[in-house]
Amino acid sequence: MVLTGVTSKAVRKGDPEPPLAPGKFRVYNMRFCPWAEKAMIYVAAKGIDAEVININVTDKPEWYFSKHYQGKAPAIEHNGKIVIESGYIPEYLDDAFPESRILPTDPYEKVQQKLLMERLTAIQSPTQCHFCSSDNLRDRSLKEEKQPKVFEVLKQAEDLLADEFYAGSAPGYPDYLSFPFFEKCWWAASLDGVVDLPTTSFPGEEKYPKLTRWFDRMLNSDAVQSVTQSIEHGAAFMNAYATHQPMDYDLGL
Amino acid sequence: MVLTGVTSKAVRKGDPEPPLAPGKFRVYNMRFCPWAEKAMIYVAAKGIDAEVININVTDKPEWYFSKHYQGKAPAIEHNGKIVIESGYIPEYLDDAFPESRILPTDPYEKVQQKLLMERLTAIQSPTQCHFCSSDNLRDRSLKEEKQPKVFEVLKQAEDLLADEFYAGSAPGYPDYLSFPFFEKCWWAASLDGVVDLPTTSFPGEEKYPKLTRWFDRMLNSDAVQSVTQSIEHGAAFMNAYATHQPMDYDLGL
Repeated sequence: MVLTGVTSKAVRKGDPEPPLAPGKFRVYNMRFCPWAEKAMIYVAAKGIDAEVININVTDKPEWYFSKHYQGKAPAIEHNGKIVIESGYIPEYLDDAFPESRILPTDPYEKVQQKLLMERLTAIQSPTQCHFCSSDNLRDRSLKEEKQPKVFEVLKQAEDLLADEFYAGSAPGYPDYLSFPFFEKCWWAASLDGVVDLPTTSFPGEEKYPKLTRWFDRMLNSDAVQSVTQSIEHGAAFMNAYATHQPMDYDLGL
Repeated sequence: MVLTGVTSKAVRKGDPEPPLAPGKFRVYNMRFCPWAEKAMIYVAAKGIDAEVININVTDKPEWYFSKHYQGKAPAIEHNGKIVIESGYIPEYLDDAFPESRILPTDPYEKVQQKLLMERLTAIQSPTQCHFCSSDNLRDRSLKEEKQPKVFEVLKQAEDLLADEFYAGSAPGYPDYLSFPFFEKCWWAASLDGVVDLPTTSFPGEEKYPKLTRWFDRMLNSDAVQSVTQSIEHGAAFMNAYATHQPMDYDLGL
Protein backbone atom coordinates (compact mmCIF):
# COMPACT_ATOMS: atom_id res chain seq x y z
CA MET A 1 0.00 0.00 0.00
CA VAL A 2 1.35 3.38 -1.01
CA LEU A 3 -0.53 5.40 1.58
CA THR A 4 -0.15 4.52 5.23
CA GLY A 5 -2.14 5.96 8.12
CA VAL A 6 -5.30 6.79 6.15
CA THR A 7 -7.38 5.26 8.95
CA SER A 8 -5.19 6.43 11.83
CA LYS A 9 -6.88 8.22 14.73
CA ALA A 10 -6.80 12.00 14.61
CA VAL A 11 -4.07 13.71 16.61
CA ARG A 12 -5.30 16.49 18.86
CA LYS A 13 -4.26 19.16 21.32
CA GLY A 14 -1.76 17.72 23.76
CA ASP A 15 -0.66 14.91 21.45
CA PRO A 16 3.02 15.01 20.48
CA GLU A 17 4.10 15.50 16.88
CA PRO A 18 4.52 12.05 15.32
CA PRO A 19 8.17 11.58 14.38
CA LEU A 20 8.80 11.78 10.64
CA ALA A 21 11.20 9.26 9.12
CA PRO A 22 13.93 10.95 7.05
CA GLY A 23 12.87 11.43 3.43
CA LYS A 24 9.29 10.39 4.15
CA PHE A 25 6.49 12.31 2.42
CA ARG A 26 3.63 13.26 4.74
CA VAL A 27 0.05 14.47 4.24
CA TYR A 28 -1.84 16.23 7.04
CA ASN A 29 -5.45 15.25 6.46
CA MET A 30 -8.94 15.48 7.92
CA ARG A 31 -10.84 12.37 6.86
CA PHE A 32 -14.16 14.07 6.13
CA CYS A 33 -12.93 17.32 4.61
CA PRO A 34 -13.43 17.67 0.84
CA TRP A 35 -10.49 20.08 0.51
CA ALA A 36 -8.16 17.68 2.27
CA GLU A 37 -9.57 14.90 0.09
CA LYS A 38 -8.42 16.80 -3.02
CA ALA A 39 -4.83 16.59 -1.85
CA MET A 40 -5.24 12.96 -0.74
CA ILE A 41 -6.72 11.85 -4.08
CA TYR A 42 -3.96 13.64 -5.99
CA VAL A 43 -1.25 12.01 -3.87
CA ALA A 44 -2.92 8.61 -4.37
CA ALA A 45 -3.42 9.10 -8.12
CA LYS A 46 0.26 9.96 -8.49
CA GLY A 47 1.28 6.86 -6.53
CA ILE A 48 3.38 8.84 -4.06
CA ASP A 49 4.61 6.79 -1.13
CA ALA A 50 3.16 8.83 1.74
CA GLU A 51 2.30 8.75 5.40
CA VAL A 52 -1.02 10.28 6.45
CA ILE A 53 -1.53 12.12 9.74
CA ASN A 54 -5.17 12.86 10.51
CA ILE A 55 -5.74 16.12 12.38
CA ASN A 56 -8.48 16.96 14.85
CA VAL A 57 -9.23 20.41 13.45
CA THR A 58 -11.45 21.37 16.37
CA ASP A 59 -8.82 20.69 19.07
CA LYS A 60 -5.73 21.25 16.97
CA PRO A 61 -2.36 19.98 18.18
CA GLU A 62 -0.23 22.97 19.24
CA TRP A 63 2.71 21.90 17.06
CA TYR A 64 0.50 21.85 13.97
CA PHE A 65 0.52 25.65 13.78
CA SER A 66 4.22 25.41 12.89
CA LYS A 67 3.09 23.49 9.79
CA HIS A 68 0.11 25.67 8.78
CA TYR A 69 -0.15 29.19 10.17
CA GLN A 70 -3.93 28.78 10.49
CA GLY A 71 -3.79 25.14 11.55
CA LYS A 72 -5.92 23.98 8.63
CA ALA A 73 -5.82 20.70 6.72
CA PRO A 74 -4.58 19.76 4.17
CA ALA A 75 -0.86 20.38 4.22
CA ILE A 76 1.98 18.30 2.91
CA GLU A 77 5.50 17.92 4.24
CA HIS A 78 8.16 17.06 1.69
CA ASN A 79 11.92 17.22 2.17
CA GLY A 80 11.49 19.37 5.27
CA LYS A 81 9.25 21.88 3.52
CA ILE A 82 5.56 22.48 4.02
CA VAL A 83 3.08 23.26 1.25
CA ILE A 84 -0.46 24.29 2.19
CA GLU A 85 -3.77 24.96 0.41
CA SER A 86 -5.67 22.38 -1.63
CA GLY A 87 -5.69 24.78 -4.58
CA TYR A 88 -1.89 24.73 -4.83
CA ILE A 89 -0.78 21.34 -3.51
CA PRO A 90 -1.74 19.42 -6.70
CA GLU A 91 0.33 21.63 -8.98
CA TYR A 92 3.25 21.47 -6.54
CA LEU A 93 3.02 17.69 -6.63
CA ASP A 94 3.11 17.69 -10.44
CA ASP A 95 6.13 20.01 -10.41
CA ALA A 96 7.96 18.06 -7.69
CA PHE A 97 7.04 14.61 -9.05
CA PRO A 98 7.04 15.21 -12.83
CA GLU A 99 7.34 11.49 -13.62
CA SER A 100 3.69 11.04 -12.53
CA ARG A 101 2.46 14.34 -13.93
CA ILE A 102 -1.35 14.64 -14.14
CA LEU A 103 -1.65 18.16 -15.60
CA PRO A 104 -0.75 18.33 -19.31
CA THR A 105 2.65 19.83 -20.16
CA ASP A 106 1.24 21.77 -23.11
CA PRO A 107 0.60 25.31 -21.76
CA TYR A 108 -2.76 25.68 -23.48
CA GLU A 109 -4.08 22.23 -22.51
CA LYS A 110 -2.89 22.79 -18.95
CA VAL A 111 -4.71 26.09 -18.56
CA GLN A 112 -7.86 24.64 -20.15
CA GLN A 113 -7.94 21.90 -17.51
CA LYS A 114 -7.47 24.47 -14.76
CA LEU A 115 -10.24 26.65 -16.18
CA LEU A 116 -12.56 23.65 -16.39
CA MET A 117 -11.77 22.84 -12.77
CA GLU A 118 -12.53 26.50 -11.94
CA ARG A 119 -15.90 26.31 -13.71
CA LEU A 120 -16.80 23.09 -11.93
CA THR A 121 -15.84 24.68 -8.62
CA ALA A 122 -17.87 27.80 -9.39
CA ILE A 123 -21.00 25.90 -10.28
CA GLN A 124 -20.54 23.64 -7.26
CA SER A 125 -20.49 26.47 -4.75
CA PRO A 126 -24.29 26.67 -4.34
CA THR A 127 -24.29 22.91 -3.72
CA GLN A 128 -21.60 23.30 -1.12
CA CYS A 129 -23.63 25.98 0.59
CA HIS A 130 -26.65 23.76 0.44
CA PHE A 131 -24.96 20.73 1.98
CA CYS A 132 -22.24 22.11 4.16
CA SER A 133 -23.90 25.07 5.79
CA SER A 134 -25.67 24.14 8.95
CA ASP A 135 -28.75 26.20 8.05
CA ASN A 136 -29.88 24.00 5.21
CA LEU A 137 -28.94 20.63 6.60
CA ARG A 138 -30.40 21.58 9.95
CA ASP A 139 -33.64 22.91 8.59
CA ARG A 140 -34.94 20.21 6.28
CA SER A 141 -38.07 22.24 5.56
CA LEU A 142 -35.91 24.21 3.11
CA LYS A 143 -35.55 21.21 0.78
CA GLU A 144 -38.15 22.20 -1.81
CA GLU A 145 -36.83 25.74 -1.93
CA LYS A 146 -33.16 24.80 -2.16
CA GLN A 147 -32.94 21.65 -4.25
CA PRO A 148 -33.74 23.15 -7.69
CA LYS A 149 -30.37 24.94 -7.45
CA VAL A 150 -28.65 21.61 -6.77
CA PHE A 151 -30.33 20.04 -9.81
CA GLU A 152 -29.23 23.01 -11.91
CA VAL A 153 -25.62 22.59 -10.76
CA LEU A 154 -25.69 18.89 -11.63
CA LYS A 155 -27.17 19.68 -15.05
CA GLN A 156 -24.39 22.18 -15.73
CA ALA A 157 -21.79 19.60 -14.71
CA GLU A 158 -23.51 17.08 -17.01
CA ASP A 159 -23.30 19.54 -19.90
CA LEU A 160 -19.61 20.30 -19.29
CA LEU A 161 -18.68 16.62 -19.49
CA ALA A 162 -17.66 16.16 -23.12
CA ASP A 163 -15.76 12.86 -22.84
CA GLU A 164 -15.51 9.95 -20.42
CA PHE A 165 -13.79 12.28 -17.99
CA TYR A 166 -13.49 16.06 -17.72
CA ALA A 167 -9.80 15.72 -18.62
CA GLY A 168 -10.57 13.50 -21.65
CA SER A 169 -10.43 9.73 -22.03
CA ALA A 170 -8.69 9.28 -18.66
CA PRO A 171 -9.26 11.04 -15.31
CA GLY A 172 -7.15 14.14 -14.74
CA TYR A 173 -6.86 17.38 -12.83
CA PRO A 174 -10.52 18.52 -13.05
CA ASP A 175 -11.81 15.02 -12.28
CA TYR A 176 -9.71 14.34 -9.20
CA LEU A 177 -10.21 17.83 -7.77
CA SER A 178 -13.94 18.18 -8.35
CA PHE A 179 -14.86 14.67 -7.21
CA PRO A 180 -14.86 15.37 -3.43
CA PHE A 181 -17.67 17.90 -3.78
CA PHE A 182 -19.88 15.63 -5.85
CA GLU A 183 -19.17 12.95 -3.26
CA LYS A 184 -20.35 15.25 -0.46
CA CYS A 185 -23.58 15.80 -2.42
CA TRP A 186 -23.94 12.02 -2.61
CA TRP A 187 -23.43 11.73 1.15
CA ALA A 188 -26.06 14.39 1.75
CA ALA A 189 -28.50 12.55 -0.51
CA SER A 190 -28.39 9.62 1.92
CA LEU A 191 -29.76 11.76 4.75
CA ASP A 192 -33.53 12.00 5.15
CA GLY A 193 -35.21 15.02 3.66
CA VAL A 194 -32.17 16.89 2.33
CA VAL A 195 -32.39 16.42 -1.44
CA ASP A 196 -34.30 14.11 -3.78
CA LEU A 197 -31.44 12.28 -5.46
CA PRO A 198 -30.72 8.54 -5.57
CA THR A 199 -27.72 7.16 -3.69
CA THR A 200 -27.48 4.20 -6.06
CA SER A 201 -26.51 5.37 -9.55
CA PHE A 202 -26.01 8.88 -8.18
CA PRO A 203 -27.00 11.53 -9.26
CA GLY A 204 -29.42 9.66 -11.55
CA GLU A 205 -29.11 8.07 -14.99
CA GLU A 206 -32.24 9.60 -16.42
CA LYS A 207 -31.40 13.26 -15.88
CA TYR A 208 -27.61 13.05 -15.66
CA PRO A 209 -26.51 9.98 -17.68
CA LYS A 210 -22.93 11.08 -18.38
CA LEU A 211 -22.35 12.42 -14.87
CA THR A 212 -23.75 9.24 -13.32
CA ARG A 213 -21.30 7.05 -15.26
CA TRP A 214 -18.49 9.49 -14.41
CA PHE A 215 -19.31 9.46 -10.69
CA ASP A 216 -19.37 5.66 -10.64
CA ARG A 217 -16.02 5.42 -12.44
CA MET A 218 -14.42 8.00 -10.17
CA LEU A 219 -15.85 6.58 -6.95
CA ASN A 220 -14.58 3.13 -7.81
CA SER A 221 -11.16 4.26 -9.02
CA ASP A 222 -8.15 3.07 -7.05
CA ALA A 223 -7.17 6.64 -6.16
CA VAL A 224 -10.53 7.49 -4.60
CA GLN A 225 -11.03 4.10 -2.96
CA SER A 226 -7.65 4.32 -1.24
CA VAL A 227 -8.50 7.57 0.56
CA THR A 228 -12.27 7.96 0.91
CA GLN A 229 -14.69 7.24 3.75
CA SER A 230 -17.90 5.23 3.53
CA ILE A 231 -21.13 7.05 2.72
CA GLU A 232 -22.53 5.97 6.11
CA HIS A 233 -19.72 7.56 8.11
CA GLY A 234 -19.40 10.52 5.76
CA ALA A 235 -23.08 11.36 5.98
CA ALA A 236 -23.10 10.91 9.75
CA PHE A 237 -20.14 13.27 10.13
CA MET A 238 -21.69 15.85 7.82
CA ASN A 239 -24.96 15.66 9.73
CA ALA A 240 -23.20 16.13 13.07
CA TYR A 241 -21.31 19.12 11.69
CA ALA A 242 -24.43 20.74 10.30
CA THR A 243 -26.44 20.27 13.45
CA HIS A 244 -23.64 21.51 15.73
CA GLN A 245 -23.14 18.21 17.51
CA PRO A 246 -19.72 17.31 18.90
CA MET A 247 -17.47 16.19 16.06
CA ASP A 248 -16.06 12.66 16.17
CA TYR A 249 -12.96 12.76 14.00
CA ASP A 250 -12.44 9.04 14.58
CA LEU A 251 -15.92 8.06 13.40
CA GLY A 252 -15.87 4.56 11.95
CA LEU A 253 -12.38 3.67 13.12
CA MET B 1 7.10 50.06 -27.98
CA VAL B 2 6.20 46.50 -27.16
CA LEU B 3 2.51 47.09 -26.47
CA THR B 4 0.38 48.80 -29.11
CA GLY B 5 -3.19 49.98 -28.69
CA VAL B 6 -3.05 50.58 -24.93
CA THR B 7 -4.82 53.90 -25.45
CA SER B 8 -7.09 52.78 -28.28
CA LYS B 9 -10.80 53.52 -27.99
CA ALA B 10 -12.95 50.71 -26.63
CA VAL B 11 -14.74 48.57 -29.20
CA ARG B 12 -18.43 48.10 -28.54
CA LYS B 13 -21.60 46.44 -29.74
CA GLY B 14 -21.89 46.84 -33.49
CA ASP B 15 -18.16 47.39 -34.02
CA PRO B 16 -16.50 44.76 -36.22
CA GLU B 17 -13.78 42.47 -34.87
CA PRO B 18 -10.43 44.16 -35.53
CA PRO B 19 -8.43 41.98 -37.94
CA LEU B 20 -5.57 40.14 -36.28
CA ALA B 21 -2.26 39.98 -38.13
CA PRO B 22 -0.95 36.38 -38.44
CA GLY B 23 1.18 35.40 -35.47
CA LYS B 24 0.29 38.56 -33.54
CA PHE B 25 -0.33 38.25 -29.79
CA ARG B 26 -3.43 40.09 -28.57
CA VAL B 27 -4.77 41.18 -25.17
CA TYR B 28 -8.44 42.04 -24.68
CA ASN B 29 -8.41 44.69 -21.99
CA MET B 30 -10.59 47.13 -20.08
CA ARG B 31 -8.47 50.15 -19.18
CA PHE B 32 -9.83 50.66 -15.66
CA CYS B 33 -10.31 47.04 -14.59
CA PRO B 34 -7.81 45.75 -12.01
CA TRP B 35 -8.20 42.15 -13.18
CA ALA B 36 -7.45 43.10 -16.77
CA GLU B 37 -4.54 45.16 -15.49
CA LYS B 38 -3.03 42.02 -13.94
CA ALA B 39 -2.79 40.43 -17.38
CA MET B 40 -1.57 43.67 -18.97
CA ILE B 41 1.21 44.18 -16.40
CA TYR B 42 2.34 40.58 -16.77
CA VAL B 43 2.46 40.86 -20.57
CA ALA B 44 4.41 44.13 -20.24
CA ALA B 45 6.80 42.75 -17.61
CA LYS B 46 7.58 39.80 -19.87
CA GLY B 47 8.23 42.11 -22.82
CA ILE B 48 5.77 40.30 -25.08
CA ASP B 49 5.13 42.08 -28.36
CA ALA B 50 1.36 42.48 -28.14
CA GLU B 51 -1.60 44.35 -29.55
CA VAL B 52 -4.21 45.60 -27.06
CA ILE B 53 -7.92 45.75 -27.87
CA ASN B 54 -9.94 47.68 -25.30
CA ILE B 55 -13.44 46.34 -24.75
CA ASN B 56 -16.56 48.25 -23.75
CA VAL B 57 -17.77 45.72 -21.19
CA THR B 58 -21.15 47.42 -20.79
CA ASP B 59 -22.07 47.28 -24.51
CA LYS B 60 -19.98 44.28 -25.48
CA PRO B 61 -19.20 43.61 -29.13
CA GLU B 62 -21.22 40.57 -30.28
CA TRP B 63 -18.13 38.79 -31.66
CA TYR B 64 -16.38 39.04 -28.31
CA PHE B 65 -18.51 36.23 -26.87
CA SER B 66 -16.68 33.89 -29.25
CA LYS B 67 -13.51 34.83 -27.35
CA HIS B 68 -14.87 34.70 -23.80
CA TYR B 69 -18.09 32.83 -23.11
CA GLN B 70 -19.13 35.49 -20.59
CA GLY B 71 -17.71 38.40 -22.57
CA LYS B 72 -15.39 39.46 -19.74
CA ALA B 73 -11.96 41.07 -19.91
CA PRO B 74 -9.15 40.11 -19.77
CA ALA B 75 -8.54 37.46 -22.39
CA ILE B 76 -5.52 36.80 -24.54
CA GLU B 77 -5.33 35.44 -28.07
CA HIS B 78 -2.17 33.57 -28.95
CA ASN B 79 -1.60 31.37 -31.99
CA GLY B 80 -5.33 31.18 -32.64
CA LYS B 81 -6.12 30.10 -29.09
CA ILE B 82 -7.88 32.05 -26.36
CA VAL B 83 -6.96 31.99 -22.69
CA ILE B 84 -9.24 33.70 -20.18
CA GLU B 85 -9.20 34.59 -16.47
CA SER B 86 -6.64 36.85 -14.83
CA GLY B 87 -5.87 34.11 -12.32
CA TYR B 88 -4.62 31.76 -15.04
CA ILE B 89 -3.28 34.01 -17.82
CA PRO B 90 0.02 34.82 -16.01
CA GLU B 91 0.98 31.19 -15.52
CA TYR B 92 0.02 30.42 -19.12
CA LEU B 93 2.31 33.24 -20.24
CA ASP B 94 5.19 31.84 -18.19
CA ASP B 95 4.61 28.37 -19.65
CA ALA B 96 4.25 29.64 -23.22
CA PHE B 97 7.10 32.19 -23.02
CA PRO B 98 9.57 30.43 -20.70
CA GLU B 99 12.47 32.64 -21.80
CA SER B 100 10.91 35.53 -19.82
CA ARG B 101 9.64 33.40 -16.94
CA ILE B 102 8.59 35.40 -13.86
CA LEU B 103 7.50 32.53 -11.58
CA PRO B 104 10.43 30.55 -10.13
CA THR B 105 11.11 27.15 -11.67
CA ASP B 106 11.76 25.55 -8.28
CA PRO B 107 8.45 23.86 -7.30
CA TYR B 108 8.60 25.01 -3.68
CA GLU B 109 9.59 28.62 -4.44
CA LYS B 110 6.89 28.77 -7.12
CA VAL B 111 4.12 27.62 -4.81
CA GLN B 112 5.34 29.99 -2.06
CA GLN B 113 4.96 32.95 -4.43
CA LYS B 114 1.50 31.77 -5.42
CA LEU B 115 0.50 31.38 -1.78
CA LEU B 116 1.80 34.85 -0.96
CA MET B 117 -0.23 36.25 -3.85
CA GLU B 118 -3.24 34.37 -2.46
CA ARG B 119 -2.72 35.88 1.00
CA LEU B 120 -2.38 39.38 -0.45
CA THR B 121 -5.56 38.82 -2.45
CA ALA B 122 -7.40 37.53 0.62
CA ILE B 123 -6.43 40.45 2.80
CA GLN B 124 -7.22 42.88 -0.02
CA SER B 125 -10.78 41.72 -0.42
CA PRO B 126 -12.22 44.01 2.28
CA THR B 127 -10.43 46.92 0.60
CA GLN B 128 -11.88 45.96 -2.73
CA CYS B 129 -15.33 45.87 -1.19
CA HIS B 130 -14.73 49.23 0.36
CA PHE B 131 -13.60 50.90 -2.83
CA CYS B 132 -15.33 49.04 -5.59
CA SER B 133 -18.78 48.49 -4.17
CA SER B 134 -21.12 51.33 -4.93
CA ASP B 135 -22.52 51.41 -1.39
CA ASN B 136 -19.37 52.67 0.25
CA LEU B 137 -18.12 55.00 -2.44
CA ARG B 138 -21.62 56.38 -2.86
CA ASP B 139 -22.27 56.89 0.80
CA ARG B 140 -19.25 58.79 2.10
CA SER B 141 -20.79 58.96 5.59
CA LEU B 142 -19.55 55.37 6.01
CA LYS B 143 -15.90 56.48 5.97
CA GLU B 144 -15.25 56.41 9.72
CA GLU B 145 -16.93 53.03 10.03
CA LYS B 146 -15.19 51.43 7.06
CA GLN B 147 -11.68 52.81 6.94
CA PRO B 148 -10.21 50.99 9.98
CA LYS B 149 -10.54 47.78 7.97
CA VAL B 150 -8.58 49.36 5.10
CA PHE B 151 -5.82 50.43 7.49
CA GLU B 152 -5.72 46.89 8.89
CA VAL B 153 -5.35 45.44 5.38
CA LEU B 154 -2.49 47.82 4.60
CA LYS B 155 -0.81 46.93 7.88
CA GLN B 156 -1.02 43.22 7.06
CA ALA B 157 0.47 43.89 3.62
CA GLU B 158 3.23 45.90 5.29
CA ASP B 159 3.98 42.99 7.62
CA LEU B 160 4.08 40.45 4.76
CA LEU B 161 6.68 42.47 2.87
CA ALA B 162 9.98 40.89 3.96
CA ASP B 163 12.25 42.22 1.21
CA GLU B 164 12.25 45.04 -1.37
CA PHE B 165 9.48 43.18 -3.17
CA TYR B 166 7.11 40.38 -2.22
CA ALA B 167 9.01 38.09 -4.63
CA GLY B 168 12.40 39.08 -3.15
CA SER B 169 14.97 41.58 -4.38
CA ALA B 170 13.18 42.05 -7.72
CA PRO B 171 9.46 42.30 -8.53
CA GLY B 172 7.75 39.03 -9.34
CA TYR B 173 4.45 37.20 -9.47
CA PRO B 174 2.95 38.48 -6.17
CA ASP B 175 4.11 42.05 -6.87
CA TYR B 176 2.75 42.37 -10.40
CA LEU B 177 -0.53 40.66 -9.58
CA SER B 178 -1.33 42.44 -6.33
CA PHE B 179 -0.34 45.91 -7.50
CA PRO B 180 -3.59 46.75 -9.35
CA PHE B 181 -5.61 46.50 -6.15
CA PHE B 182 -3.30 48.73 -4.16
CA GLU B 183 -3.46 51.15 -7.07
CA LYS B 184 -7.27 51.18 -6.91
CA CYS B 185 -7.00 52.03 -3.21
CA TRP B 186 -4.69 54.90 -4.18
CA TRP B 187 -7.21 56.14 -6.75
CA ALA B 188 -9.97 56.01 -4.16
CA ALA B 189 -7.82 58.00 -1.70
CA SER B 190 -7.87 60.89 -4.18
CA LEU B 191 -11.65 61.19 -3.98
CA ASP B 192 -13.10 63.41 -1.27
CA GLY B 193 -14.25 61.73 1.91
CA VAL B 194 -13.55 58.10 1.02
CA VAL B 195 -10.50 57.23 3.11
CA ASP B 196 -7.88 59.20 5.03
CA LEU B 197 -4.74 58.19 3.15
CA PRO B 198 -2.23 60.41 1.34
CA THR B 199 -2.01 60.27 -2.46
CA THR B 200 1.63 61.41 -2.37
CA SER B 201 3.81 58.76 -0.74
CA PHE B 202 0.80 56.42 -0.63
CA PRO B 203 -0.23 54.73 1.65
CA GLY B 204 1.96 56.71 4.08
CA GLU B 205 5.57 56.45 5.19
CA GLU B 206 4.88 56.72 8.88
CA LYS B 207 2.50 53.79 9.26
CA TYR B 208 3.51 51.75 6.20
CA PRO B 209 7.15 52.58 5.41
CA LYS B 210 8.00 49.39 3.49
CA LEU B 211 4.72 49.31 1.58
CA THR B 212 5.08 52.99 0.65
CA ARG B 213 8.50 52.41 -0.90
CA TRP B 214 7.19 49.28 -2.63
CA PHE B 215 4.18 51.11 -4.07
CA ASP B 216 6.39 53.88 -5.41
CA ARG B 217 8.81 51.44 -7.02
CA MET B 218 5.99 49.40 -8.58
CA LEU B 219 4.03 52.43 -9.79
CA ASN B 220 7.11 53.84 -11.49
CA SER B 221 8.28 50.57 -12.99
CA ASP B 222 8.31 50.31 -16.77
CA ALA B 223 5.79 47.47 -16.74
CA VAL B 224 3.18 49.41 -14.77
CA GLN B 225 3.84 52.72 -16.51
CA SER B 226 3.33 51.15 -19.92
CA VAL B 227 -0.19 49.94 -19.14
CA THR B 228 -1.72 52.05 -16.37
CA GLN B 229 -4.09 55.02 -16.36
CA SER B 230 -3.59 58.31 -14.54
CA ILE B 231 -4.96 58.66 -11.02
CA GLU B 232 -7.26 61.49 -12.22
CA HIS B 233 -8.94 59.37 -14.87
CA GLY B 234 -8.84 56.22 -12.78
CA ALA B 235 -10.52 57.89 -9.82
CA ALA B 236 -13.10 59.56 -12.06
CA PHE B 237 -13.98 56.23 -13.66
CA MET B 238 -14.21 54.49 -10.29
CA ASN B 239 -16.41 57.27 -8.95
CA ALA B 240 -18.74 57.03 -11.97
CA TYR B 241 -18.97 53.26 -11.55
CA ALA B 242 -19.74 53.49 -7.84
CA THR B 243 -22.37 56.17 -8.26
CA HIS B 244 -24.09 54.42 -11.18
CA GLN B 245 -23.31 57.11 -13.73
CA PRO B 246 -22.88 56.20 -17.39
CA MET B 247 -19.46 54.63 -17.92
CA ASP B 248 -17.04 56.35 -20.29
CA TYR B 249 -14.62 53.64 -21.39
CA ASP B 250 -12.70 56.22 -23.43
CA LEU B 251 -12.16 58.57 -20.49
CA GLY B 252 -8.97 60.58 -20.97
CA LEU B 253 -8.36 59.52 -24.57
